[in-house]
Amino acid sequence: MKRIVLLRHGESQWNKENRFTGWTDVDLTEAGIAEAAAAGRLMLTEGLKFDRAFTSVLKRAVKTLDVALDNMNLDWIPVAKNWRLNEKHYGVLQGLNKRETAEKYGDAQVYQWRRSYDVAPAPLADDDPRNPRFDPRYRDVPQSMLPRTESLRDTVDRTLPYWNCEILPALARCADILVVAHGNSLRGIVKHIKGISDAEIATLNLPTATPWVFEFDDRLNYVKDYFLGDPAEIARRMQAVAAQGKSS
Amino acid sequence: MKRIVLLRHGESQWNKENRFTGWTDVDLTEAGIAEAAAAGRLMLTEGLKFDRAFTSVLKRAVKTLDVALDNMNLDWIPVAKNWRLNEKHYGVLQGLNKRETAEKYGDAQVYQWRRSYDVAPAPLADDDPRNPRFDPRYRDVPQSMLPRTESLRDTVDRTLPYWNCEILPALARCADILVVAHGNSLRGIVKHIKGISDAEIATLNLPTATPWVFEFDDRLNYVKDYFLGDPAEIARRMQAVAAQGKSS
Repeated sequence: MKRIVLLRHGESQWNKENRFTGWTDVDLTEAGIAEAAAAGRLMLTEGLKFDRAFTSVLKRAVKTLDVALDNMNLDWIPVAKNWRLNEKHYGVLQGLNKRETAEKYGDAQVYQWRRSYDVAPAPLADDDPRNPRFDPRYRDVPQSMLPRTESLRDTVDRTLPYWNCEILPALARCADILVVAHGNSLRGIVKHIKGISDAEIATLNLPTATPWVFEFDDRLNYVKDYFLGDPAEIARRMQAVAAQGKSS
Repeated sequence: MKRIVLLRHGESQWNKENRFTGWTDVDLTEAGIAEAAAAGRLMLTEGLKFDRAFTSVLKRAVKTLDVALDNMNLDWIPVAKNWRLNEKHYGVLQGLNKRETAEKYGDAQVYQWRRSYDVAPAPLADDDPRNPRFDPRYRDVPQSMLPRTESLRDTVDRTLPYWNCEILPALARCADILVVAHGNSLRGIVKHIKGISDAEIATLNLPTATPWVFEFDDRLNYVKDYFLGDPAEIARRMQAVAAQGKSS
């Protein structure tokens, strides 16, 4: 039996301020660092011993991973960082307050932008300083592959090649793997693993910093999944994520 | 012009307690974390932009690296961790207080163990729980290569292949590289770069968490080196390291 644990990063500054973040490189809050440490201690208690870990190239995910591994005394394992695990790109919405955006465009439109499978916000302009092509961390990525906005389908399309070509093959050589990423990049991976439909995926809200364990058999077939931690607290965190994009 | 910055980790719990550490996986103190953050801010101010980083598989070096990179907003760069950058293995001395050891064996003997090029402390027994062969982080290293004690010559012998085969070749593709390691593994690398003699190396004491910049030309030939930071503070840190192994 082999396990991959999916972990959404802890609270970021813009989670706290209820702003669309996407590819903006926002830091964790003190509460987010504490959440990451608690997730690490929980995984240690549960006997997880990771052989390697994967994360995005965004600070809030890398730091969540570093802090969690440190609390497991697994600072030494190999870590791969890749842009394909980044959060969904939110286009021109990046930086806007979610509640204010809902007041301006309506709850239904914001829900579409946040949770529909095919709808993407308007793209960043070519010369917008937020355009990823100006960021040195993406200089080795072909410009034609760098998004200026994304629907969840777009996010899935650039995340799954990494899942299929790097993460799952690594599981063939490892017992346990940790993947620290983001609400939407992980929703895409979970949709793929569990075969969730395009419509149903809208209602899946990932709780922050809650280890979600996926078990696979020796042929890397998905067997089952479960969260670690207190069910009531997990439900509270999922509800908090779901409520973010509402005007009241 | 290309640069490699060598950085010794910040103060560890056993630095503070003045104990021989070697391969023991001791944590940083709060002061050590603050030193790492200050080193990161200093390197940021000096305009260093690392393409990649290397460190050992020991927590105090990995955390120093993570904290320094975070303070430079370079959380996203690739990091390679390798046992060949570990501290010198101190054999049976690991865990002992340096001053008490000097009182028992004499200052001259402790100076030999700490600073001579060819003298190694007595090795760990085969079944000693501190023997690296019991530690999962070394399971992929052939047992015949795992030390039970080391002289500085032994440390250099296992560090240089990594320097020559991984770090210097990476410099051919990168502008700036950061290497975070340990007092003695870095002494060995500096000895090699600068052609310091076996006798002279005894008097070289690396200050903690002080960026030491080595410049190379495009053919990877060493050009010059210098520390970043306040010279008086650097001298104080070097003196503090030199004084550790004395009985009074």
